[in-house]
Amino acid sequence: MKLYFVEDQTDHVYLGVRITDILHVEQTPYQKLAVVETVEYGRMLVLDGAIQCTERDEFLYHEMIAHVPLHVHPNPKRVCVIGGGDGGTVREVLRHPSVEEVKHVEIDGAVIEASKKYFPTLSTGFADPRVEVLVTDGVEYIKNTKDYFDVVIIDSTDPVGPAVGLFSQEYYGYVNNALREDGVICAQTESPFANKKLLLKCWKNMRVHFPHVGVTTGYMPTYPTGYWSYTVGSKKHELKANREVNIRGKYFTETIMSTAFDLPPFLEEMLKNA
Amino acid sequence: MKLYFVEDQTDHVYLGVRITDILHVEQTPYQKLAVVETVEYGRMLVLDGAIQCTERDEFLYHEMIAHVPLHVHPNPKRVCVIGGGDGGTVREVLRHPSVEEVKHVEIDGAVIEASKKYFPTLSTGFADPRVEVLVTDGVEYIKNTKDYFDVVIIDSTDPVGPAVGLFSQEYYGYVNNALREDGVICAQTESPFANKKLLLKCWKNMRVHFPHVGVTTGYMPTYPTGYWSYTVGSKKHELKANREVNIRGKYFTETIMSTAFDLPPFLEEMLKNA
Repeated sequence: MKLYFVEDQTDHVYLGVRITDILHVEQTPYQKLAVVETVEYGRMLVLDGAIQCTERDEFLYHEMIAHVPLHVHPNPKRVCVIGGGDGGTVREVLRHPSVEEVKHVEIDGAVIEASKKYFPTLSTGFADPRVEVLVTDGVEYIKNTKDYFDVVIIDSTDPVGPAVGLFSQEYYGYVNNALREDGVICAQTESPFANKKLLLKCWKNMRVHFPHVGVTTGYMPTYPTGYWSYTVGSKKHELKANREVNIRGKYFTETIMSTAFDLPPFLEEMLKNA
Repeated sequence: MKLYFVEDQTDHVYLGVRITDILHVEQTPYQKLAVVETVEYGRMLVLDGAIQCTERDEFLYHEMIAHVPLHVHPNPKRVCVIGGGDGGTVREVLRHPSVEEVKHVEIDGAVIEASKKYFPTLSTGFADPRVEVLVTDGVEYIKNTKDYFDVVIIDSTDPVGPAVGLFSQEYYGYVNNALREDGVICAQTESPFANKKLLLKCWKNMRVHFPHVGVTTGYMPTYPTGYWSYTVGSKKHELKANREVNIRGKYFTETIMSTAFDLPPFLEEMLKNA
């Protein structure tokens, strides 16, 4: 018997991934959660039909979303991760020796529980004493936080369902207030090929609130087009490594950091015309 | 009616792309050729069921396979393109002012004809007086050429069907002989995620014949995993830009060239253990 998980990556493109087992299916209060075993990518977490992470390629995404903004800040101590219930982003954030405190705000506790059970290599950070997990709404939480964080990372699902509010202009304003005077924001902003509109919207929205805004990209095989974007805003520091690059990941390196915001001309052009 | 072209990207992953029209289908002496109109990627060329190029993303591939090796060579005058019947690679090669002569060796004339008819933005180079198109076997052609080319680019289809011989250790030896004493070779070597074995094989095979061998990668949304590799060998020159980077593409830039061979650690590790 051949079983496939199929994701509609866009309205006109789908990806089929062969699976050997369905380990978990659950309708949480927020979304449909599934954990499947794939032949090619190891275990895979799926929310509302969209691939969130696989054991094999998750490092590409988690290293980019964490290490780029954390090197833009010269001394990140207090970090907030919104979303990312699988724990991969928190795991990478904790690799920075300066980090003293991580508030991990995930609206759906079921994602955290599933990750603890099925993704031991992702959820390692949950046990770290520097991490406080808050199962609550990331919009409300940030709205009620002022002048506290050095870095806020928005590791959201796609801009449908529970994550919609996290991509708005208003929300980036709340994040601005939640950051200290030299704070840095980073958000996953989808594929420049499959969801160009969303990237341009976030870029424009972020520029309303942050004087420095840049986009960086990275490979991500199981996300639409394999080409992913991360938009970074900074209140004060320029968009570059503002300290020694002290992390070498499986993907992220000093070289990647040094050229992170130097975009290909077609992408630069796209943003200029946004 | 919803029509999809579906490619088995690996044994366990497939990609479905919605099409609106089938413009051309032909069984050539070498392969099954199709041209379809897609909703998301414009026109698409398909050989033996595998996506070869789409109007929307072809620049990512063609700029990398041409401009990286052509900048490793300090003064490329004579260039050979093996395969690449769509003409995209030849188009990019011709952007280098030093290039005086391009031998374009494609085994299947039907691919060239289809490109001329359906892909006017790719096939522009065929009319250039510097280009000579040779519809013949790229193995035999290179075997019978000695000490002639500055750069040979192997823009082959996947390592099945007519292209198999172009990935062998023996073939890289023939290319070595066909190159002048400071020549450079570049081959497309598939996805490091979807076809790791092939990349490692080419890497090993090329190192038998060339003292300098490096791998560079680039995005390519419609190829498996969106993460593509190009393996470059050099007889004499180090793997870096050995002259001013005088091309700025839609994707390729001086920055890409300057970091082209600095690989992510996971890939470096993979090659080291090959």
